[in-house]
Amino acid sequence: MAERIDDLQIKGYRIIQNPDMFCFGMDAVLLSDFAKAEAGNKVIDLCCGNGVIPILMKAKYEDAEYTGLEIQEESADLATRSVELNGLSDSIKIVKGDVKNASEIFGASTFDVVTVNPPYMSENHGLINEYSPKAIARHEILCSLEDVIRESARLLCPGGNLFMVHRPHRLVDILTLLRQYRIEPKRIRMVHPFADKEPNMVLIEANRGGRAHLKVDRPLVVYKDNKEYTEDIYRIYDEDRDIVSVRDTDR
Amino acid sequence: MAERIDDLQIKGYRIIQNPDMFCFGMDAVLLSDFAKAEAGNKVIDLCCGNGVIPILMKAKYEDAEYTGLEIQEESADLATRSVELNGLSDSIKIVKGDVKNASEIFGASTFDVVTVNPPYMSENHGLINEYSPKAIARHEILCSLEDVIRESARLLCPGGNLFMVHRPHRLVDILTLLRQYRIEPKRIRMVHPFADKEPNMVLIEANRGGRAHLKVDRPLVVYKDNKEYTEDIYRIYDEDRDIVSVRDTDR
Repeated sequence: MAERIDDLQIKGYRIIQNPDMFCFGMDAVLLSDFAKAEAGNKVIDLCCGNGVIPILMKAKYEDAEYTGLEIQEESADLATRSVELNGLSDSIKIVKGDVKNASEIFGASTFDVVTVNPPYMSENHGLINEYSPKAIARHEILCSLEDVIRESARLLCPGGNLFMVHRPHRLVDILTLLRQYRIEPKRIRMVHPFADKEPNMVLIEANRGGRAHLKVDRPLVVYKDNKEYTEDIYRIYDEDRDIVSVRDTDR
Repeated sequence: MAERIDDLQIKGYRIIQNPDMFCFGMDAVLLSDFAKAEAGNKVIDLCCGNGVIPILMKAKYEDAEYTGLEIQEESADLATRSVELNGLSDSIKIVKGDVKNASEIFGASTFDVVTVNPPYMSENHGLINEYSPKAIARHEILCSLEDVIRESARLLCPGGNLFMVHRPHRLVDILTLLRQYRIEPKRIRMVHPFADKEPNMVLIEANRGGRAHLKVDRPLVVYKDNKEYTEDIYRIYDEDRDIVSVRDTDR
């Protein structure tokens, strides 16, 4: 166990990470920017890992109540300690439990918003050498995409929203399961490493009971040709950064 | 009836159009570039209108056999005359008929490739003032998206490919129906008017009986910021245009 404390660069919040487990990546940051919550909303993050998404969401939408659900003991412990470190124990609850039973743990129709950065890889794809914490976070070993979507549908109040980040190659699976469980996909955004490259992430918003009409957002591009971050990424990582407003003025 | 003859700018092919009916647009050109056919393939274009897609496909893939199916008498007549005008009657057959019965007309498992630029608008969306030729080409009045996909599934040989152009807001409908009828979506490409704008078209490739794995292509952008076409569009509209190679060298 080689833990470290990283600065989240928003409201002074910090996060405890352990590289032996799984450190959060850009996907978590982009999801917390893509997701929305309103004052008073009850928000649950499934497969919350070290709790980065509820902490980032709390920084953006202060007046919502957050819950993080995580099956791995060590990750749930990291998340709990990160929440305490930031003095957020009153507004973020970390629960150790299995996403497959989430609606039994919390009851049906109990959340306004679900966020989830689930394991990306199908269980039978790729090589899985061990049931390590990293493998569990990355592969559908302890839960499948269908488990996540079925439980999201049960947890959400009618009209509630799901926000997910995943890989583009699973998009058909995701969209068909969402519709099957009556959480209608309403918005997707492709994330491209460079403007002229294939996307390597997709952000998805779906609405429980919504009508069929998908909005596809403009692409979110991470790097400019010179390998600097784009203005979009600077804005997401640090809303107040001077460089962003200067560049917007220059346009 | 105010017909005109337009130059397709490829192999000297021309097309007869009637602006009172429906003139082909960039969507047809992009679909014929996105689609692929191999020598000896039997290719059918559903809802073929004035026949622009089979003619453009023939220009690209000379050694395939083409069929166009069109329900509107006047459009089928325009298509037949365009095929004759180009001396292509031996390799492109235009059939007047209803896509809803396509697999009865042609028999099941009879084509290697299906191309389709179907009506984009749900019947119950938007205002339809009249059952005019334009309304029939644009709205799901005489055929639904499900009709098109069901008949494509029946017409395709196992392993055959479907290529479709449609609107992004229908993407969930399209992908779920394709999977339902066992033509697995394998590749999509979003078409954006400008690099930083939402897509207004989506190109879809699906494979009868294929396994689940979607490839999302890099975006296809139509205009540069200065409103000139991008190199991608120049290449599609005129593969041999000097400007393309000059610009590629300049990069």
